Amino acid sequence: MIRNVIMNAPTATFRSINPSTGQTLNTDYPSQGLEDVEKACHLAAHAFPIYRESSPDLRAAFLELIAENIIGLGDQLIQMASAETGLPVARITGERARTVNQLRIFADVVREGSWADIRIDHAMPRREPLPRSDLRLRKVGLGPVAVFGASNFPLAFSTAGGDTASALAAGCPVVLKAHPAHAGTSLLVASAIRSAIEACRLHEGVFQHLTGQGNELGTLLVNDSRIKAVGFTGSRAGGLALVAVAAARREPIPVYAEMSSVNPVFLMAGALRDRAAMLGEAFISSLSMGAGQFCTNPGIVFAVDGPDLTRFEQAAIEALSKTRAATMLTAGIHRSYETGVERIASSEGVEQLARGCASEGVNQGQGAIFATNAEVFRKNSELREEVFGASSVIVRCPNVETMVALARDMEGQLTSTLHLADEDYDDAKQLLPVLEDRCGRLLVNGWPTGVEVCHAMVHGGPFPATSDTRTTSVGSMAIDRFLRPICYQDFPDSLLPTSLKEENPLKFPRREA
Amino acid sequence: MIRNVIMNAPTATFRSINPSTGQTLNTDYPSQGLEDVEKACHLAAHAFPIYRESSPDLRAAFLELIAENIIGLGDQLIQMASAETGLPVARITGERARTVNQLRIFADVVREGSWADIRIDHAMPRREPLPRSDLRLRKVGLGPVAVFGASNFPLAFSTAGGDTASALAAGCPVVLKAHPAHAGTSLLVASAIRSAIEACRLHEGVFQHLTGQGNELGTLLVNDSRIKAVGFTGSRAGGLALVAVAAARREPIPVYAEMSSVNPVFLMAGALRDRAAMLGEAFISSLSMGAGQFCTNPGIVFAVDGPDLTRFEQAAIEALSKTRAATMLTAGIHRSYETGVERIASSEGVEQLARGCASEGVNQGQGAIFATNAEVFRKNSELREEVFGASSVIVRCPNVETMVALARDMEGQLTSTLHLADEDYDDAKQLLPVLEDRCGRLLVNGWPTGVEVCHAMVHGGPFPATSDTRTTSVGSMAIDRFLRPICYQDFPDSLLPTSLKEENPLKFPRREA
Repeated sequence: MIRNVIMNAPTATFRSINPSTGQTLNTDYPSQGLEDVEKACHLAAHAFPIYRESSPDLRAAFLELIAENIIGLGDQLIQMASAETGLPVARITGERARTVNQLRIFADVVREGSWADIRIDHAMPRREPLPRSDLRLRKVGLGPVAVFGASNFPLAFSTAGGDTASALAAGCPVVLKAHPAHAGTSLLVASAIRSAIEACRLHEGVFQHLTGQGNELGTLLVNDSRIKAVGFTGSRAGGLALVAVAAARREPIPVYAEMSSVNPVFLMAGALRDRAAMLGEAFISSLSMGAGQFCTNPGIVFAVDGPDLTRFEQAAIEALSKTRAATMLTAGIHRSYETGVERIASSEGVEQLARGCASEGVNQGQGAIFATNAEVFRKNSELREEVFGASSVIVRCPNVETMVALARDMEGQLTSTLHLADEDYDDAKQLLPVLEDRCGRLLVNGWPTGVEVCHAMVHGGPFPATSDTRTTSVGSMAIDRFLRPICYQDFPDSLLPTSLKEENPLKFPRREA
Repeated sequence: MIRNVIMNAPTATFRSINPSTGQTLNTDYPSQGLEDVEKACHLAAHAFPIYRESSPDLRAAFLELIAENIIGLGDQLIQMASAETGLPVARITGERARTVNQLRIFADVVREGSWADIRIDHAMPRREPLPRSDLRLRKVGLGPVAVFGASNFPLAFSTAGGDTASALAAGCPVVLKAHPAHAGTSLLVASAIRSAIEACRLHEGVFQHLTGQGNELGTLLVNDSRIKAVGFTGSRAGGLALVAVAAARREPIPVYAEMSSVNPVFLMAGALRDRAAMLGEAFISSLSMGAGQFCTNPGIVFAVDGPDLTRFEQAAIEALSKTRAATMLTAGIHRSYETGVERIASSEGVEQLARGCASEGVNQGQGAIFATNAEVFRKNSELREEVFGASSVIVRCPNVETMVALARDMEGQLTSTLHLADEDYDDAKQLLPVLEDRCGRLLVNGWPTGVEVCHAMVHGGPFPATSDTRTTSVGSMAIDRFLRPICYQDFPDSLLPTSLKEENPLKFPRREA
């Protein structure tokens, strides 16, 4: 009894765990609560009106300095992130490059100015029947943004990741809730941001950092009336919980939750005939990246049944059988993965084609591929659900029409992929309108893992892939999520914000009429 | 008892009422229900994939033909709208011009193509460490949109109003729920849209029209899984109810509800000294437009107390005393207005300055202006609430700092207005950051009634003025509400949508990198 009481008592601190050894790391992180949320939001709200109006050059320099400071953390950051996530040093190093690149892209975006969507309708004092006023529109930051660190990208989707970079670029202060599994990594990155704040002489409230376990801290944060938007990447349950909290506020606020996706891949007949074995290998390579812990992991493969599909499956079986197990991010994620794989393996009408190599270590995710037919797949909605990790189901279809019908039954997705030869274009044209309606990114002859940070990227999609299909969380368009328009009517030039002044001192692009 | 049962039984039809006579008009409109909603949404969902991909020229021609057909309805439409709303013929004629102009602006917007936000990141096959794919982004329609007709603009914010025009421009079919107070007007406009659909050989599901009284029909509509967004202009209670219905769906959808605003006006010392009397008259003119039934009606006036303010008040009193009563839209709106005015009149510390002329007719809204001091205003939150109609409260402040403090206490607004002389700029600079945070449009030396349909207009604002501060319901930016981005990766040119093909056949503007 006494033991129980002690275990349930609120812990003042927590520690992170090295998932590749199972050992608890030896730093204590505070379990923060209401008072800390209050303080962080208070500072963020005070920083907002100043930071919102900071010059594009200052904001861009700030983002670039964060990038520089992250690089300056050196090996310490790489080692910490690798220890806390079990992800290999090479992967973390690559992710750091991506994170830093992302901050620099947003610095360019801030300076270029299209984000402000400047529109000027000049006065027409002699228009009949009524004169027209001078009307000028700019977009400004929404207000303080709550960002949640994501377990699977400790750098690129966490503390100084895409949500933070785009919110800061938009002129919004960020209150960051660290993912508890990599609290140490998060604090290191936070220190890089804080140094940049000091060097740029910005208000300390521009970035605030909170640590804690469980859901309470995040709920408190999203409930704070000073928070005006939320960025989240994670599970469907977690995302939907935050959406519900935000919708129940007196003032509902937007939640940009990127939640789950099975990223269907469609192998068309011509492509299979031309390169079944190559595709089978490439499939396993995409499936296994990062122990399958990518939002864009190819979780379902649709193809017309026949000898070419058999060749694809054989190549995939062979490749997976040689694929080493990989450490998963946390013991909990590893357990969920194994449960998910067992659920599929024991489903009626589902055949387990192969598992990856076994491993002696802890939290080792062993890839898994399954096959079933269209009839079984249609009836068993569990097969359509995401198993977070390197698990995928191949659905053998009698014909293209069945593939189209199954695509129609799909929920919203981040991506869909088509493998095509020239002769498959007519079949593809049947699928495309259905897929456009159900996903944010469509790929031809590629694999969905690997998300380019650029202007044309969409990392988003219809519900339940995300909570807001109008947006993307990767690429320069991500900044639009944190902006709102204001119109200025008949303002004297000296009272206009700089971006709207007649002589255009910021050289922002303008739409004039 | 028997009488009660009959009264509660579902009525199969309803009639609209002429508010200026109180007489029921002699046409029966069906009270539609679930079956009708099902049918409308079914048709809209079937129309969507075809209409979404319709060429910009076809969509623009369709919008222009709707405009032409509305004009073609001639006097019949003007008479019907005037009879159902009590608004004078001249006002309805002006509103028709605005509605038709709005449709034509959206036709131009569709053809010009910026709305599609085309972005092309060309492939970089030799980039190190990894090649870049060819990535192309376009925006497409969200899906079928539910639009609610608004009582106060039977044409410009109703059946073929801004929400419908922008949704159709975006490639989204519309299911319109007519406002029951002007069902006849709505059906006439719907017939103009249907003729345009036939002439353009579009799918009949592109526009569907529903009639009914009470809230049930709208709730059923917003709950239909095929509806992907909602446009609404009306009361706060109505808007929040729809927001709640949309948030409780399995797939939550965006609701663009424009709800309520008191549109504060700040009279600065220099402006009052220079032109107090002129401002007083202009204030009453803005307040009385359309019997005060504008979303942008100036419901609160803040000014520094003193002899100049007294001159302003006297001019306003004189002007209002000569202002004729005007028919309000419905008996219910008139009752609410009178209740609101009585509530303010009986508030402690509030002085009634004047009422407009009385009238013998039914549903006659008589303007009302009140005055109070900053202390009373701060303590009585009821004084900050919208009274829909020509009622306004003048708040006499001891100094500019008090005006800033009261501005800080305000809820989100559609507009805020400053009346300034050159010497007031420093005072204005104290107010502006506070107002920018709390409203969608800021005006200098004008009046908030009268909303220009142009590129730079924002008819929106922070909650509770609207449910989504990221958007506007008037002006070309309104189209953004009904769009979502899709990215195409490494597509062969022949499978790309027309707007993304390499040679740019639509000549849409592109952002290329």
